[in-house]
Amino acid sequence: MDWRAHLQEYLAPRVAQVNRALAAFLAYDAPLPRQLPEAMRYAALASGKRLRPILCIAAAEAVGGNADQVMPTACALELIHAFSLVHDDLPPMDNDRLRRGQPTVWVQFGEAMAILAGDALFAKAFELIAEQAQYSPPERVVQTLHLIATAAGVHGMCGGQVEDILSEGQTISLERLQFIHTHKTGALIRASVLAGAILAGATPAQQAVLDAYSRALGLAFQITDDILNETASPEQLGKPVGSDRARKKATYTALLGVEQARQHALQAHRAAQEALQPLGEAANPLRWLVTYAIERTH
Amino acid sequence: MDWRAHLQEYLAPRVAQVNRALAAFLAYDAPLPRQLPEAMRYAALASGKRLRPILCIAAAEAVGGNADQVMPTACALELIHAFSLVHDDLPPMDNDRLRRGQPTVWVQFGEAMAILAGDALFAKAFELIAEQAQYSPPERVVQTLHLIATAAGVHGMCGGQVEDILSEGQTISLERLQFIHTHKTGALIRASVLAGAILAGATPAQQAVLDAYSRALGLAFQITDDILNETASPEQLGKPVGSDRARKKATYTALLGVEQARQHALQAHRAAQEALQPLGEAANPLRWLVTYAIERTH
Repeated sequence: MDWRAHLQEYLAPRVAQVNRALAAFLAYDAPLPRQLPEAMRYAALASGKRLRPILCIAAAEAVGGNADQVMPTACALELIHAFSLVHDDLPPMDNDRLRRGQPTVWVQFGEAMAILAGDALFAKAFELIAEQAQYSPPERVVQTLHLIATAAGVHGMCGGQVEDILSEGQTISLERLQFIHTHKTGALIRASVLAGAILAGATPAQQAVLDAYSRALGLAFQITDDILNETASPEQLGKPVGSDRARKKATYTALLGVEQARQHALQAHRAAQEALQPLGEAANPLRWLVTYAIERTH
Repeated sequence: MDWRAHLQEYLAPRVAQVNRALAAFLAYDAPLPRQLPEAMRYAALASGKRLRPILCIAAAEAVGGNADQVMPTACALELIHAFSLVHDDLPPMDNDRLRRGQPTVWVQFGEAMAILAGDALFAKAFELIAEQAQYSPPERVVQTLHLIATAAGVHGMCGGQVEDILSEGQTISLERLQFIHTHKTGALIRASVLAGAILAGATPAQQAVLDAYSRALGLAFQITDDILNETASPEQLGKPVGSDRARKKATYTALLGVEQARQHALQAHRAAQEALQPLGEAANPLRWLVTYAIERTH
């Protein structure tokens, strides 16, 4: 089997398990409040790669843990990702009307509900992190809480998004572009990998290996996203091609051109693979995932 | 001394301590991201009662703890409150241009920055809850994390705000009004009191007492807010008088009239005082606070 078949076989049961857990965690049945749970489910249960939960699970497995053991935190990471997309799509931010071929949350439910659904997903994520204590020692839960909250805030997602917005329409340095991406998307990818590892009892040396892996993986994903935004078909993207360019977004392709961006992605791929060497076969899914990061078509 | 003098003497050093801690927690000095830390500080360090941190501290003291012991969590509660105000003020929500006599965050920094500053304050709150583990056993930190995250989400602040928005312009039942307020503001007040108590090692019996107190206190505050929105001067309010009525908000005064609303506030005051009976003199600040809740002029 090539890596694609291995990865497919690996992902199918785990994505299904994450989807079941997400649906259960978001199953509110009280009559009040109206609309909010529906908007949250619309945002979080739509089709998606479940990349962050999968990374959390794969990292746990790479150090001897398993999916059941990290499921609340894995789902929390997906909810934080979903929250960030809901807010990023809003008119004052990216003003996106389509995501994965579907109307965005604010188009479907209105702006006020989209702001609140994002907030409520974010809150729910931290509720799930607290529920992780049913499976893990509380010291580890607190450690992952700090890691994930930091990755979502000023020194992570929110900070990266602010710089992304402030850089629109400007020519920026590679250094500033790297700030944007290590913060906007890289930080939560790193937190996903490390949270899984920490909850499964990774040693400091294992954590250092996975830290290096996660940084290279985040870069490989982001550069490839930028390339796909230029070169994929609208059907593959689920949104218009070249939308980043149209909006004068800072991207690797804008700064380096598609060819050189591709070289950077390959370099990140090599760095991720090399980082994993000490971990042996249990880390194979993490290896397939970084290959997927640069080989995917959407 | 009457309760006012006692409360003043109690509050002064503690509010000052909370303000110093908030400023220190929000002192970001990296060059990137731009604007975001400034917007966060604008939102969170503006003058305010610091009610939630004070409740957290007073509850800790009522069961034998102290302010130092709960400071990260006390500040986290203020950041969650600040985050909710920033988002509530946005144009698609309450569309408020003034708060405490100052331009709201979106007026000052733009809507995108206001959304992100709110998100980043929320993230920072959970970072601080994790940092609480420097002072408290991790089991207690995880317990307060669950309590606070729940109070902020669907079954708390966000859920209450959604129902508040959906009820604008409608005549609603007292029951639905109570849902709105126990969720929109009551849940975080309750979480503030209980978090302080739990971190300071309150017994289950003490927690039950403080739970009852916090529910009555939240009600006393909310009803009085509604009354002040009708009867205070614009200088006292820092915003136009009757703004809730102008916007056809569901309020206690709209539903019951000012006089009957006042009776309900007095009843909540009595319930809060009675709940505290088992706690003795250490709970005096909590007693002064509920009297303040119904006697204040802004």
